[in-house]
Amino acid sequence: MRVGVIGGGQLARMMVPPAVALGIDIRVLAEVEGSSAEIAATAVGDYRDAGAVLEFARDVDVVTFDHEHVPQAVLAALVDAGHAVHPGPAALAVAQDKIVMRERLTAIGVPVPRWAVVRDAAGLGAFLADHGGSAVVKTPRGGYDGKGVRVVRRADEADDWFAAAQAAGDGRLLVEELVDFRRELAQLVARRPSGEVRAWPLVETVQREGVCAEVFAPAPDAGPFADEARAMTQRIATELGVTGVLAVELFEASDGRLLVNELAMRPHNTGHWTIDGAVTSQFEQHLRAVLDLPLGDPSPTAACSVMVNVLGGPAGGTMPDRYPAAMAAHPEAKFHSYGKQSRPGRKVGHVTVTGGELDETLARARAAAGFFQG
Amino acid sequence: MRVGVIGGGQLARMMVPPAVALGIDIRVLAEVEGSSAEIAATAVGDYRDAGAVLEFARDVDVVTFDHEHVPQAVLAALVDAGHAVHPGPAALAVAQDKIVMRERLTAIGVPVPRWAVVRDAAGLGAFLADHGGSAVVKTPRGGYDGKGVRVVRRADEADDWFAAAQAAGDGRLLVEELVDFRRELAQLVARRPSGEVRAWPLVETVQREGVCAEVFAPAPDAGPFADEARAMTQRIATELGVTGVLAVELFEASDGRLLVNELAMRPHNTGHWTIDGAVTSQFEQHLRAVLDLPLGDPSPTAACSVMVNVLGGPAGGTMPDRYPAAMAAHPEAKFHSYGKQSRPGRKVGHVTVTGGELDETLARARAAAGFFQG
Repeated sequence: MRVGVIGGGQLARMMVPPAVALGIDIRVLAEVEGSSAEIAATAVGDYRDAGAVLEFARDVDVVTFDHEHVPQAVLAALVDAGHAVHPGPAALAVAQDKIVMRERLTAIGVPVPRWAVVRDAAGLGAFLADHGGSAVVKTPRGGYDGKGVRVVRRADEADDWFAAAQAAGDGRLLVEELVDFRRELAQLVARRPSGEVRAWPLVETVQREGVCAEVFAPAPDAGPFADEARAMTQRIATELGVTGVLAVELFEASDGRLLVNELAMRPHNTGHWTIDGAVTSQFEQHLRAVLDLPLGDPSPTAACSVMVNVLGGPAGGTMPDRYPAAMAAHPEAKFHSYGKQSRPGRKVGHVTVTGGELDETLARARAAAGFFQG
Repeated sequence: MRVGVIGGGQLARMMVPPAVALGIDIRVLAEVEGSSAEIAATAVGDYRDAGAVLEFARDVDVVTFDHEHVPQAVLAALVDAGHAVHPGPAALAVAQDKIVMRERLTAIGVPVPRWAVVRDAAGLGAFLADHGGSAVVKTPRGGYDGKGVRVVRRADEADDWFAAAQAAGDGRLLVEELVDFRRELAQLVARRPSGEVRAWPLVETVQREGVCAEVFAPAPDAGPFADEARAMTQRIATELGVTGVLAVELFEASDGRLLVNELAMRPHNTGHWTIDGAVTSQFEQHLRAVLDLPLGDPSPTAACSVMVNVLGGPAGGTMPDRYPAAMAAHPEAKFHSYGKQSRPGRKVGHVTVTGGELDETLARARAAAGFFQG
């Protein structure tokens, strides 16, 4: 049973422990030598190069991904060559382009922020006038962790992006209402090709400068949103034919709406808590799903789990440099290092603490993660 | 932070997931290509060959082990070359020779079965006469999983072993009383070089034909034995200077004694439940201990955990062949496959289930493991 993962980042890396446990042979096509997923990297190559990807895929049972950036032409070449690819090209197309995503979600009746496609400052100005004078402009492709997202209040604030979009292609940008939200939530499910879907509990996420900083699982006081988010996400997975893990980032809007912000079709930062806080982690579940194996129990193993990202990392080193102090102070914490050198803003690892009560668990997790800053 | 593991069996394999999580570089010296720990194997060589072992150890921070069979001369060569070796040669000497083990445990006042060193049938006959006509004869070295252990009731029943022992060395065998026990227990602790010791809960183990078959954690109705076993094991770890995980197999004798049966100075089959049932698994703790990092919380995460070994495995295949049926029936079970082909009696994997109540958890674990037999 052999899984090939395209991309050697931390998501591929975190698939390794469950693959080893289950006895699944995992192979990674990494971008560079010394990638985060080095231990499982059997090839180094460009994921945009169909030849390199086909060569890598030759003797695996299924191809899956560390990221959503593999071009459709390469995905098509894999499918044409008879490879199982999960998630498949049609589903990935929705995750690869934010305009396509808004179109599809709107078509299947999933609530999203009010949106439009704009091609110039005039179009943006009209949208601003209709939506209270502020909006969010997004490049349809290539954005992540807050990149490719800009809050605007004047029609000329996206002129550089319009110029770039016209130079690069059809000149279209996505514009959305600036949602006034109480908080951000995330719902993760996994779906296997034969249709089974399993959902983890809804979680609350705290974003800082567009990057996930903290996750609280389950989301406190979720009330009816828990059922609503699960049903909505299961529906998206089924309607779009997603296989593997689907992560849906949500706004709990101040006016009471639950709105889909973003989708990701892979294990997701908001699901890292499941490694230490659920019977089946998102990484194990993703492997099971893409192999079309029966899915595992996603139940939490503790009353609450808190994950805190380590962003940047210890100056001039790596997380393990700080283990002596961090581990002495927090024997209860689970430390995860992605094998990366520190760099401002870089996701170099995370810390999870499980407990009975949110405030104390959060305090512990923040304190444990704090050892890796500065 | 780099750990070198001598031996590529399933214990080395199960160190890989926590090493990947913590960002510890793990390297394995395997006996053969295609070992259980293949994913981390950076060298293939003979652990009895000092040259091969020294070459392997050249750029690791600490050397540790998948088994206790590395000869003292090779261990001495490592220490002489300035390598950190955990557990160290002096501690390993006690685990390598059952006569030395009985001598040392007796010297530090730890209760063990009544024992003697015998060199011939006359000596064995005298022991039998003094101990009710039955005894257990053990070869001092090289035994595991019931090998090198024989129950005897006549003085001539160990003649072949006496002949072999005389041919191979000093001709000595260990003889012990055949303990009438209510059940078998195991206590695991980890100790780091700087002295910190942490203990998991006492567990009950069920052995079949000398091989661990099932483990119940924590041991039900342990009563005062829980404290006694923990104190005894912590004392052994400290007195013998054990570093890393120490496993102590115990008899709860029918006459009320708690007796030490065997020691192992490495992660142990009776601790596999900790992967899924404790905050810190024995494999993570072993890595932390040998690196002299502060130890993690060994608390259980569920009211009870049951581990069932998969012995033999599915005829003509491997555990993953049976995942479709096993996972569909038991989404709650954690499946562990060691990447081995099935063979009668071979440990090819294990299954752990956690739960609130022992009888139900045991039934689930047995049923889930049952999918991999026949």
